[in-house]
Amino acid sequence: MRLSQFPLSTTKETPADAQVVSHQLMLRAGYIRQLGSGLYSWLPIGLRTLTKIAAIVREEMNRAGALEMLMPSVQPAELWQESGRWDQMGAEMLRFRDRHQNDFCLGPTHEEVICHHFRQDFRSYRQLPVNFYQIQTKFRDERRPRFGVMRSREFLMKDAYSFHMTAEDLNREYQNMRDAYVRIFTRLGAEFRPVKADSGNIGGALSEEFHILAGSGEDLLAVAQGGTYAANVEAAETKPSGAARATAAQSLEKVSTPGQKTCEQVSKFLNVPLTGKVKLLVVKGEDGGLVGIALRGDHQLNEIKAAKHPLVASPLTMADPADVLKVFGCEVGYLGPVGCPIPVIADFAAAEIADFVCGANDNDHHLRGVNWGRDCAEPATADLRMIAEGDPSPDGIGTIKFYRGIEGGHIFQLGTKYTKAMSVSVLDAAGQAVTPEMGCYGIGVTRLAAAVIEQSHDERGIIWPDAIAPFRVIICPIGSDKSAAVKDAAEGLHADLLAAGIDVVLDDRGNRPGSMFADAELIGVPHRIVIGDKGLATQQFEYKHRRADKAEMIAATTAAVLEKLAAV
Amino acid sequence: MRLSQFPLSTTKETPADAQVVSHQLMLRAGYIRQLGSGLYSWLPIGLRTLTKIAAIVREEMNRAGALEMLMPSVQPAELWQESGRWDQMGAEMLRFRDRHQNDFCLGPTHEEVICHHFRQDFRSYRQLPVNFYQIQTKFRDERRPRFGVMRSREFLMKDAYSFHMTAEDLNREYQNMRDAYVRIFTRLGAEFRPVKADSGNIGGALSEEFHILAGSGEDLLAVAQGGTYAANVEAAETKPSGAARATAAQSLEKVSTPGQKTCEQVSKFLNVPLTGKVKLLVVKGEDGGLVGIALRGDHQLNEIKAAKHPLVASPLTMADPADVLKVFGCEVGYLGPVGCPIPVIADFAAAEIADFVCGANDNDHHLRGVNWGRDCAEPATADLRMIAEGDPSPDGIGTIKFYRGIEGGHIFQLGTKYTKAMSVSVLDAAGQAVTPEMGCYGIGVTRLAAAVIEQSHDERGIIWPDAIAPFRVIICPIGSDKSAAVKDAAEGLHADLLAAGIDVVLDDRGNRPGSMFADAELIGVPHRIVIGDKGLATQQFEYKHRRADKAEMIAATTAAVLEKLAAV
Repeated sequence: MRLSQFPLSTTKETPADAQVVSHQLMLRAGYIRQLGSGLYSWLPIGLRTLTKIAAIVREEMNRAGALEMLMPSVQPAELWQESGRWDQMGAEMLRFRDRHQNDFCLGPTHEEVICHHFRQDFRSYRQLPVNFYQIQTKFRDERRPRFGVMRSREFLMKDAYSFHMTAEDLNREYQNMRDAYVRIFTRLGAEFRPVKADSGNIGGALSEEFHILAGSGEDLLAVAQGGTYAANVEAAETKPSGAARATAAQSLEKVSTPGQKTCEQVSKFLNVPLTGKVKLLVVKGEDGGLVGIALRGDHQLNEIKAAKHPLVASPLTMADPADVLKVFGCEVGYLGPVGCPIPVIADFAAAEIADFVCGANDNDHHLRGVNWGRDCAEPATADLRMIAEGDPSPDGIGTIKFYRGIEGGHIFQLGTKYTKAMSVSVLDAAGQAVTPEMGCYGIGVTRLAAAVIEQSHDERGIIWPDAIAPFRVIICPIGSDKSAAVKDAAEGLHADLLAAGIDVVLDDRGNRPGSMFADAELIGVPHRIVIGDKGLATQQFEYKHRRADKAEMIAATTAAVLEKLAAV
Repeated sequence: MRLSQFPLSTTKETPADAQVVSHQLMLRAGYIRQLGSGLYSWLPIGLRTLTKIAAIVREEMNRAGALEMLMPSVQPAELWQESGRWDQMGAEMLRFRDRHQNDFCLGPTHEEVICHHFRQDFRSYRQLPVNFYQIQTKFRDERRPRFGVMRSREFLMKDAYSFHMTAEDLNREYQNMRDAYVRIFTRLGAEFRPVKADSGNIGGALSEEFHILAGSGEDLLAVAQGGTYAANVEAAETKPSGAARATAAQSLEKVSTPGQKTCEQVSKFLNVPLTGKVKLLVVKGEDGGLVGIALRGDHQLNEIKAAKHPLVASPLTMADPADVLKVFGCEVGYLGPVGCPIPVIADFAAAEIADFVCGANDNDHHLRGVNWGRDCAEPATADLRMIAEGDPSPDGIGTIKFYRGIEGGHIFQLGTKYTKAMSVSVLDAAGQAVTPEMGCYGIGVTRLAAAVIEQSHDERGIIWPDAIAPFRVIICPIGSDKSAAVKDAAEGLHADLLAAGIDVVLDDRGNRPGSMFADAELIGVPHRIVIGDKGLATQQFEYKHRRADKAEMIAATTAAVLEKLAAV
């Protein structure tokens, strides 16, 4: 390719409305252009990267034995009514009527559609297992689309759906897909981490997310140092320490703590560590009443885990302070488990401490020297808190450290949630109808491009891994309008690299070196070859990797260039 | 690929609701499945063909220098309001509101979007010409979706848009695209014809359609035998014959023709040929009044050409019979140019005849021996009729014959219609703002698959050209469960052909020969190799091309098979 035939639309100015680096760089480098809120067009250079990501995904899905198909974006309401999700999905699912006043949605996902097709053609256990995937445009009407293509409304997604006779076979395919995802993310050339995840409203039992690690990531990941455990903090378990609770040493004492409401304030006021404080949060219960959740003063509530507790209403809803005042007779900030008028469940860590401080259920007062079982009932315990840095890994191996990540993929064991709702069944070997087990496996193809940029860039622009760079090599001839030797060498190298199957671009626009180099760095081409009369005088090209601080001289031969490319 | 790993969903029954052969065969062969009215999913085997068509289109567009990009399906109303098409487009354009109550449409085409992006990044003549294309999902809310994917609502389309400083440069690129289209349609392996076309509501001056020839095609094409002229009959011109009109030989005579209203009835009743009759059609005029259109008795009105006449309202609207009665004092069926109360325009052929028969503008009466200029004014003449089989070609070379075709592509010279409406301008070499000329070039990727089947099938199923067959070769081993020799030979050939880069599939399902062959023929694999113990005993495979009546024996070697493939 030649830049004279492949227009770049690069700019030096950082767009004012782009908040994150990937959005800024994708606009500046001319990868994308906005059409409307959360709607982006991919210009030719951007589409090259998007296509390369999609090709890697396709190759590895095919290698894993999944079958590519293509389902429509527009989906009839009837299918979503059948699964029950027509009413469950919020405003994120865009609904409309066609000219005949029939209801449709613009597909945010395709579980219903694949179940519909599966039940048309699959009748026997002999036809299973099967795994269908597509790389297709999805639409989600985000309330606040942001960060460019990172959270856009229309985007390219790879979604796969597998069907199985048994949970064991689903688990086998889930591992097969997990392996394929590891290959995909490895081939992208980005640093990534598969982590245990919450299944959210997709449903199902087991799920993992694949995250591109980046300081700007929206998700916090708990990763065991010296171990293999990794989970989204949302989903990371915590366990009882196993150590016996210390014997009560202090007697119960009510102390005046005027205006001291937060754990931090009380801890400082009474000179006790945060780890010696128990806080009581009040949430709505499954039965419509209130439930108290006891946490250690230094711990944070994990709303997702709490909402799964049988006593707690889902989704988690904090109690109205007015209701708390009515029931407790005091303000939030002075609550505690002693003489508590509502059921209390305690996080494992909160239940392990003795002689603790907590609210006295009386304004401007706390209790100290409190002990479970002596001053109040032994609480029901559960895993209710956010894991914290420095915690032991839940599997006992290593210590938790936090990373930030951008979710690029998500795999789920759905079980029979959708197959049951959509009345899917196949006959087993004995002729009995069986509801197949189902898995689903997504990759945000569009988002991956932005995520890799978040991980890999510098102040001059994008730094692409070779596999998904729009061009692997850029040739920058200096003064080719004046020097036939430079022009010939540049054209020759360009032709040689193309013949070798290398994705190379020749900057034949006749720009000055500074402008050429700035464009090459902004668009993120990993390998740059500069050809000038000075180097050619000693039979040399200048080579620089996008990450390197300095250029180096190499022999002015195609073989020397290929050697550099192979070295990465 | 192995059929044990690639489930087919073939059926023997012809689906009751599929009216055309391609729809029936695509359902029976398991290429597509319906999701809703005009909404189809492509099963894996179907997607293989769709992907191959798209790949040919992409390769030739790239070779022609066009740049691939990707625009969103969802488009903001503002752009369509700017071009004026938000109100012009009918119910075929699906409109909806997002969660914030903003108006959008599901893109039926992308002229507005590309103009929007072009004006963001293109400022100078130095950046032109440029041609952007995408292969992307379109949605058109057809009133009556039918014929499967031939006229569906959601479909894959290649749309390209080029921008130019001058009309000459637009014409150059139009020819470049025309050449690319000829290469694309040639590579598909189907019989096709580029024909002159009407530009319809896309607008612009010059356009051509690319048709797949098929007896079931919805379009009628006028093609010169012994010449190169070809046009959609909608757009085919007719010209004056050039011969002088015969001298008037008969005197004007009013004759009674009770109940004889049609040309055929009058012709028979008065024993004059249809070519000696002039009929007068009454349509609404541009000024709100009525206009008479005189046609020779054997000719048909071309509504598209008539609507373009300056005196005629567009779109063409036939006059209300009650209005005709009021103005003429007689019924439709007895109208004629003599003493006609409204302006008359005559088709060239109708103006050329002498001593003709026409209505007398009096119920149950006609005139005979009528002559233009003597009995009524010489009419204004124009090209108003449908071309007919046997007519001389409009370019003077050859004679017109009709074919039926299915439109698979359409190229347009749009001129400045959209660039003007969208306020697109670039600076020329003199620093003056210029409105660029624009071309657009579409291919219905989805429809092409169906169109090729309409052209190429038999009673047993689809007959694919090699280039777009889901598999080029199918290997059918007979009794491989019992014969290790058969199994080994089949596996060996499969591996060899894969290694040679041939798209081969091995039917390793263990089915009986009849069932294997029926599937292979239904899905349309062009080359079939049967391997059995009997043939192997004399070192032979059986080879059959899908079009051949009989199988033949060839040497049981990969080389012999490759030779057969190369022979096509």
